[in-house]
Amino acid sequence: MRGPQPLSGFPEWLPEQRLVEQELLDRIRARFELHGFVPVETRAVEPLDQLLAKGETDKEIYVLRRLQAEHDSDDAGLGLHFDLTVPFARYVLEHRGRLQFPLRRYQMQKSWRGERPQEGRYREFLQVDADIVGQGTLGLYADAELLAVAHDVLGSLPIPPVIMRVNNRKVLEGCYRALGIEDTQATLRTVDKLDKIGEAAVGAQLVESLGLDQAQAKACLEVARISSEDGSFADAVRSLGLRDDLLDEGLAELTEVMRAAARIPGRTVADLRISRGLDYYTGTVYEAVMAGHESLGTICAGGRYDNLASAGTGVRFPGNGLSIGVTRILGRLFGQDLLRASRRTPSCVLVALPSEEDRERCDAVAAALRARGVPCEVAHEPSRYGKQIRNAERKGIPYVWFPSGEASGGHEVRDIRSGEQHPADPERWTPPAEDLHVHLLTTPPAERS
Amino acid sequence: MRGPQPLSGFPEWLPEQRLVEQELLDRIRARFELHGFVPVETRAVEPLDQLLAKGETDKEIYVLRRLQAEHDSDDAGLGLHFDLTVPFARYVLEHRGRLQFPLRRYQMQKSWRGERPQEGRYREFLQVDADIVGQGTLGLYADAELLAVAHDVLGSLPIPPVIMRVNNRKVLEGCYRALGIEDTQATLRTVDKLDKIGEAAVGAQLVESLGLDQAQAKACLEVARISSEDGSFADAVRSLGLRDDLLDEGLAELTEVMRAAARIPGRTVADLRISRGLDYYTGTVYEAVMAGHESLGTICAGGRYDNLASAGTGVRFPGNGLSIGVTRILGRLFGQDLLRASRRTPSCVLVALPSEEDRERCDAVAAALRARGVPCEVAHEPSRYGKQIRNAERKGIPYVWFPSGEASGGHEVRDIRSGEQHPADPERWTPPAEDLHVHLLTTPPAERS
Repeated sequence: MRGPQPLSGFPEWLPEQRLVEQELLDRIRARFELHGFVPVETRAVEPLDQLLAKGETDKEIYVLRRLQAEHDSDDAGLGLHFDLTVPFARYVLEHRGRLQFPLRRYQMQKSWRGERPQEGRYREFLQVDADIVGQGTLGLYADAELLAVAHDVLGSLPIPPVIMRVNNRKVLEGCYRALGIEDTQATLRTVDKLDKIGEAAVGAQLVESLGLDQAQAKACLEVARISSEDGSFADAVRSLGLRDDLLDEGLAELTEVMRAAARIPGRTVADLRISRGLDYYTGTVYEAVMAGHESLGTICAGGRYDNLASAGTGVRFPGNGLSIGVTRILGRLFGQDLLRASRRTPSCVLVALPSEEDRERCDAVAAALRARGVPCEVAHEPSRYGKQIRNAERKGIPYVWFPSGEASGGHEVRDIRSGEQHPADPERWTPPAEDLHVHLLTTPPAERS
Repeated sequence: MRGPQPLSGFPEWLPEQRLVEQELLDRIRARFELHGFVPVETRAVEPLDQLLAKGETDKEIYVLRRLQAEHDSDDAGLGLHFDLTVPFARYVLEHRGRLQFPLRRYQMQKSWRGERPQEGRYREFLQVDADIVGQGTLGLYADAELLAVAHDVLGSLPIPPVIMRVNNRKVLEGCYRALGIEDTQATLRTVDKLDKIGEAAVGAQLVESLGLDQAQAKACLEVARISSEDGSFADAVRSLGLRDDLLDEGLAELTEVMRAAARIPGRTVADLRISRGLDYYTGTVYEAVMAGHESLGTICAGGRYDNLASAGTGVRFPGNGLSIGVTRILGRLFGQDLLRASRRTPSCVLVALPSEEDRERCDAVAAALRARGVPCEVAHEPSRYGKQIRNAERKGIPYVWFPSGEASGGHEVRDIRSGEQHPADPERWTPPAEDLHVHLLTTPPAERS
């Protein structure tokens, strides 16, 4: 009686959890479309050399091979994408002649990484990405706008409040240059480990591995400690006495982005420890956590990239993009029972089946209900009504319909939660609006959405 | 200026095509949920031995390998699923203790096959599957119901009319047994090639490869020629003088299914040449084509399976399932320009930007429109209004909003299709209902849905 076992890192939801995921995706999609983002879906595979050229995830790539591929090589050298950024950059280049720029697109798809699974980290996971990409140039407005859209999208979901932490790569690089540090990229990558290994270890690595002197390392850590919910971060940086043109540019950009953030709902913090590991960011960077779930890590992150998509076309496509980690969010909320569907099936009504000979009449009742948008199903076999009610209960279907017949008189419908039963006309009856479709329940029961 | 090139067999849609695909998926999903089907999504990968155990597609499987997988093997031996039936059968067994039976589920996902690409055949393609699966037993009602659901779902789509051709494996096997043919499975598989290679070639193969005598081969072809839109197919079979218990059972089942089909909208034909190649079908089988697009092949197919999911659990899970080939349908309709979106973006309004200093005011207009559900975006850069109107035109956005200001007076909105321009209040204005969201246009323009 064993049967198949789960695969570690490849989460699968039960139907009632998938109902929740679908509702989340519906809301995300509706919000992005309200902001004029177009949907894009890319193929699951990319040429291996493209995947290897970007990011630091080469060891985690799943490579494809056809089981019997002796004399065929046109799908050799393909791997599953590990994020939606690399495929989207390729999509922009490939289809650029038929796209409208600035391109505002969102994308909801699975990605795959051969990482060691742990909480919040999966081998197969669903992300939603959104990017604004210009052809040639893209104004700073896009940074502020995408941050506003992120807050709007995340704020539409029944999840804990989100805190967005924002920085600008130019601020960090400018500081490092002002300090006389040559390898600013390696310094960025080391400072990025603060959350994982702490100040002391980062300070030691800056000195021992990168060859910074004690004063430089100390200053790097001082910069990383600066944060504010208003524009005062800039004064804090300037009080360190650092002078650099790139630093000025970064502070001006971050100040502008924070000024725009102050106008929108949702908490945004300028936090100078944020650097995002990936090489391709060139300006604004941001990451979000759910309040009370900081240990889960980032649930949304992104930033400005000026040089991601361009290779081979002679045109630059600067952009700003974010990813929302849907599987990470749901894994936590399901794991702690913080979010669930109001029932286990879309069906609002189970039409009871007195006998197999009555199926045609019962189908007609169901068809009448469906014609008015009431999701329903007919019982799969005739049995005592008590058993049919229990079947509905197990599925979480709130209403059972008893069709008219010689023995039973007219049609009746029963709310099996209250036990109340009334005569009803299949051509007219509709359930209360809150029972018609599945909705989401948060714990504590106060629905946030 | 070359840039990346398409990968043969991995279709990708433009955003305006993805809008169409999403609308189709929304309608399919809404219909299945109206019939009480729950959503399920399975992981993209299955153990290779499971994939190899089912179907005849072993040569087309994509096997996964981690790029640097020397000392790790817990994801070795995985392949991408080539359909949604194998993963669903595994899902049912793995999660059976937490599922409600009979399980009515639908599933909308990509599958992958390393086949030679051609029209209607892809290496990556989107299918929608739906199954009704019982625990232990499942009544014949499920066959008739799934056929009705298939007609209802396909009939809700803006595609050409669908013709459903139905048969029952027991009819064919019963006929072959009555004819004294021993290898009924091989005979089924040979007769299944009728559409591809024609009667003469099938007849020759039956004699030469399978060792049937001329009379047997002739009778097989006679059976395959029988079709009717009512119950008369049964008389036609009986007039051949064949007698077999399984044949009687099959004719009774097919008669019952056709009787139920007569009560629902949509064309259903009993067609005794239909056998479906796959081994696991045991009773009712069906396949659908779009009228006028028969050359494209089957766009929806399915059937009854009594023994698919059971291995290792000691319990039988008989079912009936269908697949809808969404990529195949869209590939044809896009290729012949038979279906498109009313515009290229969800945005209904472009808010013009007089100057960069006005962005805050323009954002406020957009926020007011969005608060009432009007999808919109603010122009990415200030430019002459003529240029901003042309930008909206290129994106297919029907309205341009001119915000109030010292120079311009009050707010005005312009329908750029008609050129009409009126004063408007961002807190009150809404577009006509038909302009609010993207909708689908069929060619000829009469919208079928």
